[in-house]
Amino acid sequence: MKQITIFGVGLIGGSLAKALKKHDDCAHIIGCSRSEENLMRAKELGVIDAWSTDPISAVQGSDLIFISTPLGAMEQLLCQLKPALSDDVIITDGGSAKQSVIDAVERALGYLPPRFVPGHPIAGREKSGVEAAVDDLYVNRKVVLTPLAHTDKEATDQVTSMWHTTGASVECMPVDIHDKVLAATSHLPHILAFQLVNTLSDLSFSDDVFRYAAGGFQDFTRIASSDPVMWRDICIKNKSAILYMMDEFQKDMAQLRDMVEHSDDEAIHNLLSQAKLTRDDYLKRRLLEEIEP
Amino acid sequence: MKQITIFGVGLIGGSLAKALKKHDDCAHIIGCSRSEENLMRAKELGVIDAWSTDPISAVQGSDLIFISTPLGAMEQLLCQLKPALSDDVIITDGGSAKQSVIDAVERALGYLPPRFVPGHPIAGREKSGVEAAVDDLYVNRKVVLTPLAHTDKEATDQVTSMWHTTGASVECMPVDIHDKVLAATSHLPHILAFQLVNTLSDLSFSDDVFRYAAGGFQDFTRIASSDPVMWRDICIKNKSAILYMMDEFQKDMAQLRDMVEHSDDEAIHNLLSQAKLTRDDYLKRRLLEEIEP
Repeated sequence: MKQITIFGVGLIGGSLAKALKKHDDCAHIIGCSRSEENLMRAKELGVIDAWSTDPISAVQGSDLIFISTPLGAMEQLLCQLKPALSDDVIITDGGSAKQSVIDAVERALGYLPPRFVPGHPIAGREKSGVEAAVDDLYVNRKVVLTPLAHTDKEATDQVTSMWHTTGASVECMPVDIHDKVLAATSHLPHILAFQLVNTLSDLSFSDDVFRYAAGGFQDFTRIASSDPVMWRDICIKNKSAILYMMDEFQKDMAQLRDMVEHSDDEAIHNLLSQAKLTRDDYLKRRLLEEIEP
Repeated sequence: MKQITIFGVGLIGGSLAKALKKHDDCAHIIGCSRSEENLMRAKELGVIDAWSTDPISAVQGSDLIFISTPLGAMEQLLCQLKPALSDDVIITDGGSAKQSVIDAVERALGYLPPRFVPGHPIAGREKSGVEAAVDDLYVNRKVVLTPLAHTDKEATDQVTSMWHTTGASVECMPVDIHDKVLAATSHLPHILAFQLVNTLSDLSFSDDVFRYAAGGFQDFTRIASSDPVMWRDICIKNKSAILYMMDEFQKDMAQLRDMVEHSDDEAIHNLLSQAKLTRDDYLKRRLLEEIEP
């Protein structure tokens, strides 16, 4: 890879740039976003080599384009890029709702280029922006690619190899499975965390609530410090899978509410024990994976 | 304090014993629980000096009794203890639902002894049992006492001084406020975490879900590895405050669901931004407190 362009040089794009630079895997990285200030900061931090706020100039001479803007900004960006895209350039992204990115590409370009490889690194921090970017964000993380039937095999291999450089493992998955799995593991927990903070802050005794909140609360709501624009877009762009998960959760919560109301100690105990077992088991497997990736 | 008896030598009771020993604040600590094996292990680990499975022998000669059994076991224990309790002995506890402990004491003893000081250390880990006990669990944590109108001032002072030894700060609060605040900051988040794990594990694609769960999910569900017996009892013993919180949360989630369904990007953005602001602000104040407690 001689040159890549990264759209949206924040946590995700910036960390990719840093990881590639660390391993000398890309000669030249160009950043593009709407904020000149952010791009200057990224250059200053050594995350990117050059920048432009103009998408067309930003992609000149690049072998690969990585789009890590919020989901809601992708379609317009692709419309602007359309006249500058060659058949050779690989397009990939970091969006958390794959069907929506595919739809955006198709609407903007009028077709799905064979060298467009939808992707999603399953990694993040609650901090956002280029200052939060780190070169090891993707080490031992999974990156999911959702290539389509007609996606160019060589393009998929190149994207795979790029992610391998960052220390991530790469797996391919059908688009709809990705979107459902992410709604469950990431989108629903974020929604619960954001909503919990708001529900508590609306209470008449909320001053005491935040005064006495302990470590459990702090961990539980860590993800509520995530970027609101990114998460607004995810809520809208992965709507059907998210609504499904919200409904499942609400249904289960209503059942648990009944158990509590009726002091059904056996049912409550079963539910909590089952959760503990599942969670402990998940953790064990995860720790094993970290030892033997 | 020459001798104290701890009922339930697990994370909470064991950590208190370890902290007191570390500061030479108690000459002799006696442990009592139903499990001989657990008590032997606690003695072996140096957490307690002596033990008995018989509550009556366990309190002989003790100045203070600390009850850290699950809430559901307290009333029966107090019934057993009744004949052995002198007027001088201080009784305190670590229960997470204060009204239920007060009710248990009153039912078991027929009255509320003036030297009974209801208490609750706001500290914990998702690990349980004496092996999880650490001598610094309470450092920089808050302990809430909920003394009643006729509670002996000197007894409250002694309990306060015991907790100060562990590195905790102590605050007094009315019983009902404590129970409402804890339902919000601790009980509801635990319920959400337990339920989330179960909802995800009931999905038809749950294998993929746990395979691709990332760091956010891990933090979010950490508290779902907590002790199911302890949490079953909390659900039942703080029922009314917990039901109130569950209903508030469900109502707010239903509203958010509508926003998602109608792709109301402005409303979603406001909600997420508000949560981030509140959470970041909470974190800032907490970090400041840690620097200048």
